Amino acid sequence: MTDPRAQTVGDLGERALLARILAVLGDASRAEVGPGDDAAVLSAPGGRIVVTTDTLVHGPDFRLAWSGGFDLGFKSAAVNLADVAAMGARPTALFVALALPDETTLGFVEDLARGLRGACADLAPGCAVEGGDLTASDTLTIAVTAIGVLDGRPPVLRSGARPADVVAVAGELGAAARGLALLFDRFRDAEGRPVPVDAGALTAAERDDLAAQLRPRPPIALGPVAADAGATAMMDVSDGLLVDATRLAEASRVSIDLDAGMDADDLRGGEGHALLACFPPEVHLPAGFRAVGRVAPREGSSAVTVGGAPVTGHLGWDPHRDWDAGRG
Amino acid sequence: MTDPRAQTVGDLGERALLARILAVLGDASRAEVGPGDDAAVLSAPGGRIVVTTDTLVHGPDFRLAWSGGFDLGFKSAAVNLADVAAMGARPTALFVALALPDETTLGFVEDLARGLRGACADLAPGCAVEGGDLTASDTLTIAVTAIGVLDGRPPVLRSGARPADVVAVAGELGAAARGLALLFDRFRDAEGRPVPVDAGALTAAERDDLAAQLRPRPPIALGPVAADAGATAMMDVSDGLLVDATRLAEASRVSIDLDAGMDADDLRGGEGHALLACFPPEVHLPAGFRAVGRVAPREGSSAVTVGGAPVTGHLGWDPHRDWDAGRG
Repeated sequence: MTDPRAQTVGDLGERALLARILAVLGDASRAEVGPGDDAAVLSAPGGRIVVTTDTLVHGPDFRLAWSGGFDLGFKSAAVNLADVAAMGARPTALFVALALPDETTLGFVEDLARGLRGACADLAPGCAVEGGDLTASDTLTIAVTAIGVLDGRPPVLRSGARPADVVAVAGELGAAARGLALLFDRFRDAEGRPVPVDAGALTAAERDDLAAQLRPRPPIALGPVAADAGATAMMDVSDGLLVDATRLAEASRVSIDLDAGMDADDLRGGEGHALLACFPPEVHLPAGFRAVGRVAPREGSSAVTVGGAPVTGHLGWDPHRDWDAGRG
Repeated sequence: MTDPRAQTVGDLGERALLARILAVLGDASRAEVGPGDDAAVLSAPGGRIVVTTDTLVHGPDFRLAWSGGFDLGFKSAAVNLADVAAMGARPTALFVALALPDETTLGFVEDLARGLRGACADLAPGCAVEGGDLTASDTLTIAVTAIGVLDGRPPVLRSGARPADVVAVAGELGAAARGLALLFDRFRDAEGRPVPVDAGALTAAERDDLAAQLRPRPPIALGPVAADAGATAMMDVSDGLLVDATRLAEASRVSIDLDAGMDADDLRGGEGHALLACFPPEVHLPAGFRAVGRVAPREGSSAVTVGGAPVTGHLGWDPHRDWDAGRG
């Protein structure tokens, strides 16, 4: 064996694998008690915490021909950080349960740990992996739980939007979906199986779209900023603006009218994990947010309209409808 | 379709499945914000929380011929509750990520939710499932994250044991391992594949052992009790008393001498999730704890001895060595 990174999880065993993962995570822990005991101990300034969990499974959620270990670590952190931010909270810790096939290489797992650490460093400084679990499985599975603190502020729920509020977005809307379309359209073989991406065949704009799909960068720090600015309701856009605005409008029992002339990708594309927030009309939108619509009283059957008109066709990306159930 | 419980996850879709799970979980939520938003909001009295995660995977961790949905829900909660208790904390919330094959039946998932709720009700009243995630997977996977609060007490780590401390245990040691041996010895076919348990063929003691394996009942409430009584170190016994006492002794840089004449099952059996704690010699052991040994200064190479003698052979159950990699 010339390349130590080519050693497999089955060869290494759990103890050696864990030591390598902790070496990659390094000294990033900020917990009172970090990895190594029965549980981690975190301080909770303000006396309230927010908790969320989201899992990536090989097959429905990613293809290994397209996503490397770093991508998967980064994305599995980012999607959970976005849920914490969407409550108006500051992420403080990730807990990561990895279920790994025996043939998984050490290099892949180290890259995954680097992706987790990189997402924390880039998107939520002060947040770190504070614990986790390693198990064997036939299906590569990354289950992340994220913890955040509200620092004394009340949580921003989906249900607080009020008529006349400005609807605003921070972060990318359509890019991740364009990146996914790029993968499906251009990087599959004649039988439809995923093949590795040839970055040289992509324009700069296409590379940006691909990065938005593989390593989304939601504006995590803007969650608490929006809360402090007076956001009445907030959520992250995981399944597309039309779908998620509908969820927010339903939870708040209002209607949302999105601006006419919005790009179709921006309206329907999922997986960008932008923040969708509502602000009272007198609020000056925090930097990073752009107005995309207005809240109105709920009348009739449409929770969401665009330029005053009802929406037709599929609202956005639905994993049960739109994913082809393959792996690769 | 005459039996609605025979509907599959693939038939139902995520939204309907989630509605059924939340119906089973009922009104148990104690969170400020429970399931339904981007994240849950929990109060953290005392300003510190403990967090742990542990995953059960079909194959290495359970066989569906032996474990029903209720068993798996109960066990996946119990093992996480035990890790929280072992810090001296009171569990307050579970977050459950389920990755389910399409052919999983609704009845199975409802039983799993009942098992989660039942374990909370029986072992940790006041704790409830406060959030989770549903994904599709080829491999049934139950990833649970448990949260607990210390109510102002300091956490009890593995590293605090001091010479002359009494080593004590609360909960069952050997029963779960005997239950596993029973399954492997008596409920496999000629090819070694698991077959359903015929409870009528078991004695009452065997049924107890089986229950300890399938639905372990660690003494969760005794974790905070031990902490309040002055426990210097604590952990849960997941891989066997010899293995876990070794870990505690190594973390504390001491030796542990276990009483001569202990039962071999009690010394080597794993998965019981009893609490192993050390108390200063002047402490009156809390009800539910029994002395099993004594802490001594670390001298020589043995972290753990039994009746003063070094231990030979395998220390306990090792999933990488002792599990046969089958499923069923």
